[in-house]
Amino acid sequence: MHAISELKQLVDAEINQLALNTTPEDLYKPITYMLSLDAKRMRPVLVLCGCELFSGDLNKALMPALGIEVFHNFTLLHDDIMDNAPLRRSKPTVHEKWNVNVAILSGDTMFVKACQLMMQVEDSKVRQVMELFHKTAIEVCEGQQLDMDFEKMQNVSIEEYIHMITNKTAVLLGASLKTGALIAGASQEDANHIYEFGKDIGVAFQLKDDILDVFGDDLKFGKLKGGDIVANKKTFLLLKCFELAAGDDALMLKKWLSTSDSQSEKIEAITSLYQKLNVKALAEAEMDKYFIEALNHLNAINVSDEKKSILKGFAEKLMVREV
Amino acid sequence: MHAISELKQLVDAEINQLALNTTPEDLYKPITYMLSLDAKRMRPVLVLCGCELFSGDLNKALMPALGIEVFHNFTLLHDDIMDNAPLRRSKPTVHEKWNVNVAILSGDTMFVKACQLMMQVEDSKVRQVMELFHKTAIEVCEGQQLDMDFEKMQNVSIEEYIHMITNKTAVLLGASLKTGALIAGASQEDANHIYEFGKDIGVAFQLKDDILDVFGDDLKFGKLKGGDIVANKKTFLLLKCFELAAGDDALMLKKWLSTSDSQSEKIEAITSLYQKLNVKALAEAEMDKYFIEALNHLNAINVSDEKKSILKGFAEKLMVREV
Repeated sequence: MHAISELKQLVDAEINQLALNTTPEDLYKPITYMLSLDAKRMRPVLVLCGCELFSGDLNKALMPALGIEVFHNFTLLHDDIMDNAPLRRSKPTVHEKWNVNVAILSGDTMFVKACQLMMQVEDSKVRQVMELFHKTAIEVCEGQQLDMDFEKMQNVSIEEYIHMITNKTAVLLGASLKTGALIAGASQEDANHIYEFGKDIGVAFQLKDDILDVFGDDLKFGKLKGGDIVANKKTFLLLKCFELAAGDDALMLKKWLSTSDSQSEKIEAITSLYQKLNVKALAEAEMDKYFIEALNHLNAINVSDEKKSILKGFAEKLMVREV
Repeated sequence: MHAISELKQLVDAEINQLALNTTPEDLYKPITYMLSLDAKRMRPVLVLCGCELFSGDLNKALMPALGIEVFHNFTLLHDDIMDNAPLRRSKPTVHEKWNVNVAILSGDTMFVKACQLMMQVEDSKVRQVMELFHKTAIEVCEGQQLDMDFEKMQNVSIEEYIHMITNKTAVLLGASLKTGALIAGASQEDANHIYEFGKDIGVAFQLKDDILDVFGDDLKFGKLKGGDIVANKKTFLLLKCFELAAGDDALMLKKWLSTSDSQSEKIEAITSLYQKLNVKALAEAEMDKYFIEALNHLNAINVSDEKKSILKGFAEKLMVREV
């Protein structure tokens, strides 16, 4: 059993050594650039955790772990084009540093590379691992499309929002853990429990992100607080606020949502409304619900508590994090 | 054994029945649209031909055949964004009919769908089929990048050009045939011969395209003759012309390449130069070289001439086509 920090080091070392072609340069330099940006490596670490939880051989999970990380970075690369984002991890995005065509094609190539890495498992595991990977990739694409659709929609329900973040963010965490579990030879039942654990933690993780964007410590958070409010992003907080606001509150909310200037007043006004309507506590309650559900799945797994402690600690940390 | 036209009908019928999710609509409607456009279905037909050549069961090759077609359409979809193309098969391209973001994401989803279809082979064949598919996909991406690089380069050699069209176009034809062969259980040696046959035919096919763009019958070709000349596209003809033009011819060529107006005069002048320097015949000789090389590989395959006749006829037709 290794600590999370040790597993991250292992992943970083392998990513630095990843053998990529070097030409055509405009195809491969953006991939190397993207993978070299400072990152938490949460997903590949979860692949390794899933493997160790079931006493698997870490070496057999390393390439698929990189595969999941390369896939995740491919989705970021293409999402950044779609969101017209100038920065990724405080560095210029690929479409800014090169151009949109380079970003599309190097992204496509990353996805193929991810598939090649995922294939590096024993013959008896190939189908299970690849089918999970493809199913998850489809769900992530659907989640991204829903996220873009929601920007243009007037009414989005909390249920639809949870469905969107489940696809866009949570399923890949579940799939990471399950990939490691499959490689280690976990039973189907245990593999499903670890998948559900990861998925529930993923939803809780995104809800925590929504909360931190408004109520986080902006010095620690490293970006301007209230970015979601300024962008009218339909987060759990805003959707819950819509649900609860009545009378003057509803009118006030509507007014601010149609305003794009007076940013700091807008943040202040909507944050006040969130406080008045108690939506932060409601978001935390929703987050806790998913966290508890996740722990139930972890508890149901047929391995010792000692082996589970790393994942339990990891999940707890995600929930109390301030950044 | 089935005729090419029968195999095409089979492919068309299966594509019409392809089960795709329906929501989110902006993700799946472009995929259905792209796959419904009138097309030759050359690549999936080659998968089926490769399977029948080695007496395989067509039903076992159908889903991978669709996988190759979906993959091919994914590359067209993303290439059209990069080339800023308004039309595809006389219909609006996806990024024109919807928008660039929709085209990126529905393309990504098509690639995953292609992978899922490719996986539908017997367990004992999965690794071989998928490794060939991934290798080919990487080469196609590299070919597209080289094609874009060449637009900005002053000097491109004929060798570099052949390398580019090999990756961008030819390897997928080889991989289509080889996929069918692997599914039918062909020997490694025979599978490699059919791959090389397809790759060489692919290069010859692209050279024929270059020739038809300038010397084709424009009524039959269905698009304006000389489009490559107007766009200064570095085809075999232009590169060979560069190589051979000296003195006044070289100056004249240079002058026309820096001109973007007087399109019809430009086409006429450069076509005359091609005729003077005999580049059409040289292109045909190069095409014939690859065609003969292809036939050598077909001949080397350990099955009856009768079984080979369909592919031989198919290749001959591609070489004498006028559109």
